[in-house]
Amino acid sequence: MALRKITFLPHNKTIAVPTGESILHAAMEAGVYVQASCGGEGLCGKCRVAIESGDVDETPSEHLSGEDRENDFKLACRCRVKSDLVVRIPAESEIDATVLGKFMSPRVTARIRHTNIEELKSRGLFIPPVEKKYLEMAKPTADDNLADTSRLISYLKTQHHEHRLVVELPVIRKIPDILRAACYKVTATLTRPVVDDGKTHISNIEPGDTSHRNYAIAVDIGTTTVYGQLIDLHSGEVLSEHGDFNGQISYGEDIISRIMITEKPGGLDKMHEVLIRSINGIIDRVIGSSTVRREEISTITLAGNTTMTQILLKINPRYIRRSPYVPASTLYPQIRAIDLGLDLAVHATALVYPNISSFVGGDIVSGIMGSGIYLSKRLSLFIDIGTNAEIVIGNRDWLTCAACSAGPAFEGGGIQFGMRADKGAIEDFLIDPCTLAPMIRTVGDVRPKGICGSGLINMVANLFETGIIDNLGAFHRDLHSKRIRERDGVYEYVLAWSDETQIGRDIVLTENDIENLIRAKGAIYSGCQTLLEEVGLKISDLDRIFLAGGFGSQVDVEKAMTIGLLPEIAPEKIRYIGNSSLLGARLCSLTNRVRKDVVDVMKKMTNFELSETSSYMEHYVAALFLPHTDLDLFPKLKSRLQARKTNCAAQAG
Amino acid sequence: MALRKITFLPHNKTIAVPTGESILHAAMEAGVYVQASCGGEGLCGKCRVAIESGDVDETPSEHLSGEDRENDFKLACRCRVKSDLVVRIPAESEIDATVLGKFMSPRVTARIRHTNIEELKSRGLFIPPVEKKYLEMAKPTADDNLADTSRLISYLKTQHHEHRLVVELPVIRKIPDILRAACYKVTATLTRPVVDDGKTHISNIEPGDTSHRNYAIAVDIGTTTVYGQLIDLHSGEVLSEHGDFNGQISYGEDIISRIMITEKPGGLDKMHEVLIRSINGIIDRVIGSSTVRREEISTITLAGNTTMTQILLKINPRYIRRSPYVPASTLYPQIRAIDLGLDLAVHATALVYPNISSFVGGDIVSGIMGSGIYLSKRLSLFIDIGTNAEIVIGNRDWLTCAACSAGPAFEGGGIQFGMRADKGAIEDFLIDPCTLAPMIRTVGDVRPKGICGSGLINMVANLFETGIIDNLGAFHRDLHSKRIRERDGVYEYVLAWSDETQIGRDIVLTENDIENLIRAKGAIYSGCQTLLEEVGLKISDLDRIFLAGGFGSQVDVEKAMTIGLLPEIAPEKIRYIGNSSLLGARLCSLTNRVRKDVVDVMKKMTNFELSETSSYMEHYVAALFLPHTDLDLFPKLKSRLQARKTNCAAQAG
Repeated sequence: MALRKITFLPHNKTIAVPTGESILHAAMEAGVYVQASCGGEGLCGKCRVAIESGDVDETPSEHLSGEDRENDFKLACRCRVKSDLVVRIPAESEIDATVLGKFMSPRVTARIRHTNIEELKSRGLFIPPVEKKYLEMAKPTADDNLADTSRLISYLKTQHHEHRLVVELPVIRKIPDILRAACYKVTATLTRPVVDDGKTHISNIEPGDTSHRNYAIAVDIGTTTVYGQLIDLHSGEVLSEHGDFNGQISYGEDIISRIMITEKPGGLDKMHEVLIRSINGIIDRVIGSSTVRREEISTITLAGNTTMTQILLKINPRYIRRSPYVPASTLYPQIRAIDLGLDLAVHATALVYPNISSFVGGDIVSGIMGSGIYLSKRLSLFIDIGTNAEIVIGNRDWLTCAACSAGPAFEGGGIQFGMRADKGAIEDFLIDPCTLAPMIRTVGDVRPKGICGSGLINMVANLFETGIIDNLGAFHRDLHSKRIRERDGVYEYVLAWSDETQIGRDIVLTENDIENLIRAKGAIYSGCQTLLEEVGLKISDLDRIFLAGGFGSQVDVEKAMTIGLLPEIAPEKIRYIGNSSLLGARLCSLTNRVRKDVVDVMKKMTNFELSETSSYMEHYVAALFLPHTDLDLFPKLKSRLQARKTNCAAQAG
Repeated sequence: MALRKITFLPHNKTIAVPTGESILHAAMEAGVYVQASCGGEGLCGKCRVAIESGDVDETPSEHLSGEDRENDFKLACRCRVKSDLVVRIPAESEIDATVLGKFMSPRVTARIRHTNIEELKSRGLFIPPVEKKYLEMAKPTADDNLADTSRLISYLKTQHHEHRLVVELPVIRKIPDILRAACYKVTATLTRPVVDDGKTHISNIEPGDTSHRNYAIAVDIGTTTVYGQLIDLHSGEVLSEHGDFNGQISYGEDIISRIMITEKPGGLDKMHEVLIRSINGIIDRVIGSSTVRREEISTITLAGNTTMTQILLKINPRYIRRSPYVPASTLYPQIRAIDLGLDLAVHATALVYPNISSFVGGDIVSGIMGSGIYLSKRLSLFIDIGTNAEIVIGNRDWLTCAACSAGPAFEGGGIQFGMRADKGAIEDFLIDPCTLAPMIRTVGDVRPKGICGSGLINMVANLFETGIIDNLGAFHRDLHSKRIRERDGVYEYVLAWSDETQIGRDIVLTENDIENLIRAKGAIYSGCQTLLEEVGLKISDLDRIFLAGGFGSQVDVEKAMTIGLLPEIAPEKIRYIGNSSLLGARLCSLTNRVRKDVVDVMKKMTNFELSETSSYMEHYVAALFLPHTDLDLFPKLKSRLQARKTNCAAQAG
């Protein structure tokens, strides 16, 4: 997609955005404040800008006055970029130029890291756990009447150097007829062992040469959503992808409620069945949108948190939620997909990611494999923020992990107007430090309905850096604005007035919300500190950060550092890897090395139960500030805050 | 059982028999001819003997005349031995004393070889493939919250030195609840790998200590009959045993007819189902006659010929009967018993004996393991005579095997009055060389219905050694006896007149019958010769013979040598091991060493297709004589025959 250069005046800030991007988006990306309270739906008519040069695609709006039209103003949210542009922000949106660029920074999202299948190939690692081998065998004669299975094994040895082979009974049943029907030209499917000295299973046999048609499905089983990808094991490409809600959602949103249902009579069977139905739905969709036939799928790799994994395998998860929080197992044997109820052929093998503990599950193991932090000598922090937050710190020599009791604040839980990053969620936010008027952008550019995780982080970071809230998250009491008010003894900031919203109520951010966010980010930050301290290291020793999880791609990493969620680190050292669990599952489908490495990773991994680690509570309490009690941990923010103070003093003086 | 000494006069032959044995039996054992044509039922009244000293239990009979009573005669078949006896055979039964002891020899049956469980124990081999281990584990705590399965594995390592463990999914599902319900005191069932570097599977877990209750079932699947034994894996004892017809019998008596049914639509499923029903019937019976509960059975070992094995595993056997006679597989993976339809608990493992070829099946492999010929440096011949005959020759360094197209003569097939060794089958026979009157004994001491395999061998050997038939099996045409007659151009010998039988017809042995027997024994003998020749050895190099199969226990091994079925060897070097297939299956249940050794045996084994071995036909044609064209292969018989000739010449002179 072609990038266009947009220069905003009078700030004189330039940013590159793709053709077709709205000017409101571009301004937000550039950190340029434009009044906007309808989320980008074109209803409030506030985001007026003047196009000084260049072309835009404009959707007409009745919210512009005749005078605005005469002055050649357009609504930023209704204009899409066609060429390089120079855009002037009118005075009403413009904040004091002297503070511009001081604490209004362009949004910095983490760079997205893509898996490089070519790299996998060049390293000789593109050897899927399930491979197909084509064979042309001599027909048996009186002098050479080896058993059919022995003949197959013997040719696999001589033609493909395959050893330590075992054949499963369902395959033995097919061999005699297929050999003869196919004139002894057949394709054998080989399922590799996890360990080098294990056995390779001959899991299928087909007539003729089908070695170029070999497919896998990778699945991430989230508590909320299930994602699947169909993978061509010949080319390594993702052929199709689909995500859907985990059908269990109607039985309760969080893990605990799901476990409670499994404890009722028939509950485990029910939860298993609902989950399998969701996965089967995804299997249908990824196959349906491809030219692959169901029986060409050789393997399905599944990664999920410990509870989801146990429900998938129909293992009672009741003890996961009971002290001392013991899971049933960490490793699981490979099994036939049909034995789990999955709608695949009888020969399809299911590979299930291992768990580390009750709270650090297969999704995290999968994420570790997907991020590759276990391969590097550099010290990496891996954070997966979903319904809960898990962190992993380590390198190729050692690994530590912990689940943080962060709670669901980042998914909107415990926040008065919190919601998931669905349509209408405020995901981006800037504030005019003088008027305290907000600039908001919502998912889908519609009138706001609530606040999602990345929006929450941006708001609190903005409010803190502009001095509207203090380092305890409390609003300064001396700001005289109708947007800051007290309700039932709690201060709140009005993001959108009721008539600007979809819900007919004022959407506010309360001090309670901010407190919840501070607790959540404090749990994660102090978790990192504790893990590092346990291995004798400090935050400043971190070389890289990997962000995973649904919310990570939109989050402004500078803002996440401002609130003290992420350690302060150069933004280019942060990578966003998206759904790391799905990525890990895909990698596992593509290279058997990952399955072998998992066993090593499990051995190198030390799991910390933070609640049982004595220093954790101390770190946690110290982290319940914006960004932290110890500002020296955030030197760049410290200097920005000092600059603002100087600036304010100068302005006041 | 106390043995009593019986001396027969005027022969002055003494034999030891158990108390309660009938005098007719004892005479037969001693090779002492007594007139007897009703098979021992007490109806013909011919077997009169005088008890000169000692006590007998006599059942009164109306078939003794008043004169007989006055002379103190009793019927030999109605008197049972109570003490040492001296018995005189009256003149009518007495054959010329000069020929006595020359070609009437006591019956020599092979010594029965029993498995010595104590020996197995002392050699440290009493380690069943499925063992139980009791564990007392510490409860998990916050500091020690290993996953349940990891805890189990860890304690198995430290308390029982178990390594390379894997846990199956159905067991993982049970572990969490059982650990807690049993206060972490549990018994784990371990299924051993076949190879040393394989994995041990944890196949079950039970609360408390059940390690002393561990049972196995061993099954021999014959084409005709199925036998099962329930084995205590703690003591090594056989607790119960049961045999029954293979339900497939109603679909055809031989292998070929069974295969033909499997080729029809639904036929394989049907044959599988019928077989499984037979096995399940036996499982019910062996469990029912014990105090063992079904779920205490950890393993079932099954041995059968290649066709039965493939039907058991639901593998289409159609190519077994088609040139070049290729079986589906030789080795089979271990599987869950319930996956075969066997009525055992979900955790019971089925171990299936491997096959060598289409015609040398798991029953023979099992027999090799049961006989132990693969362990000795001595050169052994193993012969299993059932519906067909298989031979194995070898020692601990090498093994060869072949299936002989002997046909079913030894089971009564192709013999005019042939039958299995059921009640009424003539199984023992002596002839008065002067009157040509027979002495017959039947299974169950009832009037005769037909002739079984051991009876047939005894008859032909007797007729040959007494000079009544020649070395081609033809009756001498100059013997003037109403018992030898011609019918439709075929000579025959009348064993019992119609009024002496259960069937109301004369029971005869025809020249055709003898010819069939000669072909059958010729196929086996020449098979042995061919195998030996292929490895550069001769018949005289054989150190030992193991006889297996249903008919072997009653067969008079000297007589079997006389007809040229067995190579001439000292009788004490012949062992009868009974149902060797069942024995092998039992051994495999008792010691995992056998399962490991099977793999070695399979590697050491060379299978000969006799029809493809050039020298076989030559050997076969030379063996179509009594005992053989080359009488020097049977030196003892040769000298007996020469002695008889001299004797006859002397009598004639």
